[in-house]
Amino acid sequence: MKLISGGICAAKGFKASGVHCGIRKNRTKKDLALIVSDVPASAAAVYTTNLVKGAPLLLNMRNLSDGKAQAVICNSGNANTCNANGIQIAKEMCELVSKTTGIPANDVVVASTGVIGQPLDITPIANGMTQLVSELSYEGGNDAATAIMTTDTVSKEVAVEFEIGGKICRMGGIAKGSGMIHPNMATMLVFITTDCAIAPDMLQKALSGDIKNTFNMVSVDGDTSTNDMVTVLANGMAGNEVITEENQDFTVFMKALNTLTVNLCRMIAGDGEGATKLLECVVTGAEDEETAKICAKSVICSSLLKAAMFGADANWGRVLCAIGYSGASVDVTKIDVSFKSNKGEITVCQNGAGVPFSEEKAMEILLETEIDILISVGDGEFSATAWGCDLTYDYVKINGDYRT
Amino acid sequence: MKLISGGICAAKGFKASGVHCGIRKNRTKKDLALIVSDVPASAAAVYTTNLVKGAPLLLNMRNLSDGKAQAVICNSGNANTCNANGIQIAKEMCELVSKTTGIPANDVVVASTGVIGQPLDITPIANGMTQLVSELSYEGGNDAATAIMTTDTVSKEVAVEFEIGGKICRMGGIAKGSGMIHPNMATMLVFITTDCAIAPDMLQKALSGDIKNTFNMVSVDGDTSTNDMVTVLANGMAGNEVITEENQDFTVFMKALNTLTVNLCRMIAGDGEGATKLLECVVTGAEDEETAKICAKSVICSSLLKAAMFGADANWGRVLCAIGYSGASVDVTKIDVSFKSNKGEITVCQNGAGVPFSEEKAMEILLETEIDILISVGDGEFSATAWGCDLTYDYVKINGDYRT
Repeated sequence: MKLISGGICAAKGFKASGVHCGIRKNRTKKDLALIVSDVPASAAAVYTTNLVKGAPLLLNMRNLSDGKAQAVICNSGNANTCNANGIQIAKEMCELVSKTTGIPANDVVVASTGVIGQPLDITPIANGMTQLVSELSYEGGNDAATAIMTTDTVSKEVAVEFEIGGKICRMGGIAKGSGMIHPNMATMLVFITTDCAIAPDMLQKALSGDIKNTFNMVSVDGDTSTNDMVTVLANGMAGNEVITEENQDFTVFMKALNTLTVNLCRMIAGDGEGATKLLECVVTGAEDEETAKICAKSVICSSLLKAAMFGADANWGRVLCAIGYSGASVDVTKIDVSFKSNKGEITVCQNGAGVPFSEEKAMEILLETEIDILISVGDGEFSATAWGCDLTYDYVKINGDYRT
Repeated sequence: MKLISGGICAAKGFKASGVHCGIRKNRTKKDLALIVSDVPASAAAVYTTNLVKGAPLLLNMRNLSDGKAQAVICNSGNANTCNANGIQIAKEMCELVSKTTGIPANDVVVASTGVIGQPLDITPIANGMTQLVSELSYEGGNDAATAIMTTDTVSKEVAVEFEIGGKICRMGGIAKGSGMIHPNMATMLVFITTDCAIAPDMLQKALSGDIKNTFNMVSVDGDTSTNDMVTVLANGMAGNEVITEENQDFTVFMKALNTLTVNLCRMIAGDGEGATKLLECVVTGAEDEETAKICAKSVICSSLLKAAMFGADANWGRVLCAIGYSGASVDVTKIDVSFKSNKGEITVCQNGAGVPFSEEKAMEILLETEIDILISVGDGEFSATAWGCDLTYDYVKINGDYRT
């Protein structure tokens, strides 16, 4: 298992492109992405649990019911959500891909991200299709990664290489953050490609299992998006024997997927709106996995803790407070808390009470850009990790005036 | 029922005082408050549901089990929470009141608010007691209200006058905000006094019933405090027949209590940390009360919506998004949303989709300091109101460096 370059084009047989078609006013910002597999692929997806769902998601739920897809189209700048004609526009996007590539419209995954509740005009998308398709290339991964960005400050790409049955397989993914991130049984926009051969039901099982410990453990601002979605296309071009059951190959596949998704989670959290720091909260010693998860997520979601981390303030009382109101059943007199970064580790709370520590050393540790919040809640065997970011002036700035 | 001045000293037989004793370094900031009833009073309280509870709360739970109290002591600057000797210090505070006033120690309600996890030194409190007791006065309500402030920018006092059985009764209350405010079956620090005669069990019933629709519907930052508490002392000096059942007198008492608590809720939300605006979210048309409450509270808690309100941006998609992930079961195609203030009202969403509106007019409305977010979720009969505030640069500033 090793990290490689190439993003979503690292796997065999996947082309991608990204262009500016005019949904956004800023001409230097790409706003339309396309990913195409050379051959039909197994496909799986998970969706937001928000009752308000973007029109593209509603269409994908239908189109992906056969476990098959060959292309993904995604625009940024407009979420196509809460629009009276949303489904119609999403359909037209799939049909435009079909007309220009020959791929059946119901084998196209469609996604939109941006402002909610503003009608999405199909015209710029229609006008941009020729360029979008003509620029498809096996090196186009970064163009697509750039085109799906909203308030993201950096594009998010990962790829891994692994071996299954003697065959080299590759898997790549791109993601867009960076606000309205608080996945619940689904996630933000993530597109994953692989040349590994795997049956659709096993692909779905792998994806649904993985996100519980990865994307569902990320929070930027506590707001579960209406347009969250992760999809995987697996085109089988690596030539391995198709994975059809939970055998050793499936285990390797799961591990590759997890390597990829954990990396994307860290990128999404670290590039949360306005963020200056990536926070990783590791809870150990829990009686069961759910308890560990609830604690980790509650801490990573606390506005007070997030603001303290921005200020490099070792205010561990806010960690205890967030565990206390999380709903998890823990013995608060057994909680230990440490902060850790490249500059070292410092214990600030033991058995639920403060211990003397050097404020100077704590600040040195917390001034770093990646902070681990390490919490032990008892003698249990279970642990969980959650990812988030600090709360900053820029989060307020970005979201105080997002539409204009 | 009318609003009057006087705060916690408006009711007959209640004295109060507030001094600087030295818990805080800033000598101009009072940090110790005392409220004393001339005679023993019925007492009721509700507490935070945070598993991590301040030591004073644990002591009060014991002392108030007989439904009786005569004094309240409260310090700011230190929460006396997560300290190994916390209970001992809380006890000593009650004993200091007992020594200097003659009131039994177990008839003293104790409270602390401030930083979590820093040992609370009893010395400055002991040194300040003589002055605190000597300054007790029937006009001391504002001194006490000032002494319990933490990051509050204004003191919070209300009083109402009402009639029960031909007798004039009065009730007053003080509150402290303004961060770590997201009550759950309890609330922030609120002290209420009344001269109305009411049995302890009825007083507790009134309080427990009221907070469900008042303090439990306030959120500043989603963080449920470890030290939340509301207490009421009712000393009976108004001379009315003691309320011992749910009769008409009880109804009048409940109405007085509600008038007082709603006013305190609005003050707490409007003075939320860094807030520039009070947000009141009214949800109507729900199938049941719980649904209305869940929707109202989810909207008022959304960081994205709070930041949009700070920016006077009519980004109603964030309202729909927050309802969608709230967990409430509603038909999203029936949701209407309007924004309202002193400058008028504007409808921005009908039947779950946007309607054309004047951005100019919307901004005029949203630039005011009190904003109503009016949401109809269907044809049901139930409604709920929640209170919150905008998310601002100053929230980040205050909480990025709270301890120093």
